[in-house]
Amino acid sequence: MPDRIDINCDMGESFGAYKLGRDQEVMDYISSANIACGWHAGDPMVMEQTVRLAKEKGVAVGAHFGYPDLMGFGRRRMDLTLNEIENYMLYQIGALYAFAKAYGLPLQHVKAHGALGNLAFVDLEASRAIARAVLRFSSDIILVTYSGTVMVQAAREIGVRFVEEVYADRVYNPDGTLQSRKIHGSVMHDSEKATLQALMSVQKGCVVAHDGTEVKVKAESLCVHGDTPSAVAILQNKGRT
Amino acid sequence: MPDRIDINCDMGESFGAYKLGRDQEVMDYISSANIACGWHAGDPMVMEQTVRLAKEKGVAVGAHFGYPDLMGFGRRRMDLTLNEIENYMLYQIGALYAFAKAYGLPLQHVKAHGALGNLAFVDLEASRAIARAVLRFSSDIILVTYSGTVMVQAAREIGVRFVEEVYADRVYNPDGTLQSRKIHGSVMHDSEKATLQALMSVQKGCVVAHDGTEVKVKAESLCVHGDTPSAVAILQNKGRT
Amino acid sequence: MPDRIDINCDMGESFGAYKLGRDQEVMDYISSANIACGWHAGDPMVMEQTVRLAKEKGVAVGAHFGYPDLMGFGRRRMDLTLNEIENYMLYQIGALYAFAKAYGLPLQHVKAHGALGNLAFVDLEASRAIARAVLRFSSDIILVTYSGTVMVQAAREIGVRFVEEVYADRVYNPDGTLQSRKIHGSVMHDSEKATLQALMSVQKGCVVAHDGTEVKVKAESLCVHGDTPSAVAILQNKGRT
Amino acid sequence: MPDRIDINCDMGESFGAYKLGRDQEVMDYISSANIACGWHAGDPMVMEQTVRLAKEKGVAVGAHFGYPDLMGFGRRRMDLTLNEIENYMLYQIGALYAFAKAYGLPLQHVKAHGALGNLAFVDLEASRAIARAVLRFSSDIILVTYSGTVMVQAAREIGVRFVEEVYADRVYNPDGTLQSRKIHGSVMHDSEKATLQALMSVQKGCVVAHDGTEVKVKAESLCVHGDTPSAVAILQNKGRT
Repeated sequence: MPDRIDINCDMGESFGAYKLGRDQEVMDYISSANIACGWHAGDPMVMEQTVRLAKEKGVAVGAHFGYPDLMGFGRRRMDLTLNEIENYMLYQIGALYAFAKAYGLPLQHVKAHGALGNLAFVDLEASRAIARAVLRFSSDIILVTYSGTVMVQAAREIGVRFVEEVYADRVYNPDGTLQSRKIHGSVMHDSEKATLQALMSVQKGCVVAHDGTEVKVKAESLCVHGDTPSAVAILQNKGRT
Repeated sequence: MPDRIDINCDMGESFGAYKLGRDQEVMDYISSANIACGWHAGDPMVMEQTVRLAKEKGVAVGAHFGYPDLMGFGRRRMDLTLNEIENYMLYQIGALYAFAKAYGLPLQHVKAHGALGNLAFVDLEASRAIARAVLRFSSDIILVTYSGTVMVQAAREIGVRFVEEVYADRVYNPDGTLQSRKIHGSVMHDSEKATLQALMSVQKGCVVAHDGTEVKVKAESLCVHGDTPSAVAILQNKGRT
Repeated sequence: MPDRIDINCDMGESFGAYKLGRDQEVMDYISSANIACGWHAGDPMVMEQTVRLAKEKGVAVGAHFGYPDLMGFGRRRMDLTLNEIENYMLYQIGALYAFAKAYGLPLQHVKAHGALGNLAFVDLEASRAIARAVLRFSSDIILVTYSGTVMVQAAREIGVRFVEEVYADRVYNPDGTLQSRKIHGSVMHDSEKATLQALMSVQKGCVVAHDGTEVKVKAESLCVHGDTPSAVAILQNKGRT
Repeated sequence: MPDRIDINCDMGESFGAYKLGRDQEVMDYISSANIACGWHAGDPMVMEQTVRLAKEKGVAVGAHFGYPDLMGFGRRRMDLTLNEIENYMLYQIGALYAFAKAYGLPLQHVKAHGALGNLAFVDLEASRAIARAVLRFSSDIILVTYSGTVMVQAAREIGVRFVEEVYADRVYNPDGTLQSRKIHGSVMHDSEKATLQALMSVQKGCVVAHDGTEVKVKAESLCVHGDTPSAVAILQNKGRT
């Protein structure tokens, strides 16, 4: 078990007059910020502020790319071609890169948001397109993949740098995918439970799905959610370990 | 007079199912492509195709940034703060940079589009914000400035690389700004006239405004428009010189 | 066989600086205009011009509603809830209604565009949501349904006014759905063939699918496409009958 | 002084996953809801919920139209033509009308939001365009005008129904316009002060500008803001009168 594990969290999801998340508080507890790129959330003002905040707190920045669907917060599947996925990603990666560059930070990683992430969980071709887009931009950037899914396979095949990720505060299905947010209770608000899932994934290399199945995972990065009320509590527990 | 002068043209202004411009034809005659970044025109698919086409033709690529107003094609003034101008620019520059990077091309230049360009013509503070945004991204990138305007002054003050530009096919006002597109005849469709204006700007360092005033200019780059019917003819004349 | 049959065509698909379709020419040949409502195509300026043109030509106006996806021209399936479909429709119907009202025209009909239309072809629940949205707005408005599909059943169940529609210039699948636009040749550019399909649908109550299967249809309205080069020719043939 | 005065408030300003305002609480205290139409704020789901809530509470509904600038919350001036203003308004009025119609409510009124409202305060031509758009839609609908401004004159000239409105919780300039939100303190958070301004406007027909000038107003409707913390307190004070 590593001494120290990466904790990533979605950041910069506000938009114009609309505030979302508690970035200021949460940034103290994480090591990697997944910053929205203006398609499912975020805007250039928010991106700039979030990158600046990350720099102040010593947090690495990454591009959190999603569907072009602000109204649906990127949580609704859209029927894109693989080529569209690649180019939409390149666009968003570049947009965030500009703010990282302006603040002298490297773009550490990229991660898929919402329904596009859910697609990558189960669709090898989509995962390959995602890995290709990352590699087309830079071989230095790390793709955050969902541990145990085809995304890991795609990242390996395409030859992009990657880490495997486990969700601390989401309920797992027995096949290693995340239980849909539409099902009540899929996002854990009990910080003790989430902390346990996080520790188990790191120490024992597995999580327990909603039906009791043990799902093998490799926790190189832990994802927590800043928009769920328990996030800060979870992060503080983590801080204690 | 230089042997060879840069010719820049707006490219990649199609959007989704909507086709605009004759990029394929025009790309043969120009040396610098100002590529729309998805805010006033363009989308990631169009950006990718335009960068690829530019690479095939040996044309340098630049980011043509504009207002967030696709419905108005970026031609309507919006009351943005200087900070918004900077961040909106950074976003668009980065987005285009990603496609240049994916094709192994440098991002050569950036240029302001439409009403944002018209603002930069006359507003020193806006021009400074524009120059700052370029420099925040990279000191290698060239800002295309309108010759004889405050934009040149701002570029010099901020210390960004820049070239001075003259419009071949737009009618000038006596103060060196462009006559509004709302006035009939402001975009020249007569290729001989445009060629003359271009040659005069290069050879004599001036253009003749609509009232006969000679306006001093420094033509380091000539702008022609690919969406006006005469563009290809103008470019072919240029080719002949 | 009726003496006179309704001919409907998609109109008002331009957006801002982007022109699409040949509305001015086509409007002379049709009786019903399906006008885009600003979500997959169209904008308020285009909507106003299109309604005014329809009024001049004595053509009835209807709302052509679609997904919130201008970049994809509404041709990409989005995973909406039934409630979202209903409310997105109401919004678009109302928006077009305002222009009809401003010109003293009734809103005659509504029709689903693109991928939302393709969904309605095969998804009874989606078709019911569409019919419900129409009825919530007004019991006077006619829903254009695809003849022989679940959409007819849904319209009947919900109790909305409806007509059954046949496509003159689209190739049919043996199950009565339209062959995907992604397959080459799915949109007929041969005006004689389209005219034959149209006449056959009206006179014999069937169309011949791509594999030779006769598909039973009830042609109360014929759809032609103004953006395909053959549209005007098809309409002129129709004019001759 | 009237026994009872209309109180209007901006409602339905949430968008997708983004929540704004305290509509549920505020709706108990107002008589007219200005509902955002999806351009500067709001979306069809929010519009439907807000109209339904208004119906439950016996509150009349109106269309709160604004610039096409969600990123700027409609608070940034855009350089539109008068024709664009008219058509953009018609679009938004119609969109909200659809939800009112679906719930069996009349569309009582329309009101300009943000920077478009500020324009109407001082620009007679823009005010006339706004009044024309209302009248083109229906002569039954009431235009909410800012008391003492050219908007009243425009409404009278065009012959649209109108009421004059006074802001309870905004600081006035001596010329009867509102002090810009950019100036700190322009939105009153002190409910006692706002209540006093409201009462004075109704009882004495004037408000006191920031420099002490008495500005003559005719308070046929009082505007309060549901997004400012003091709104409910202000409304409760009003309730007590």
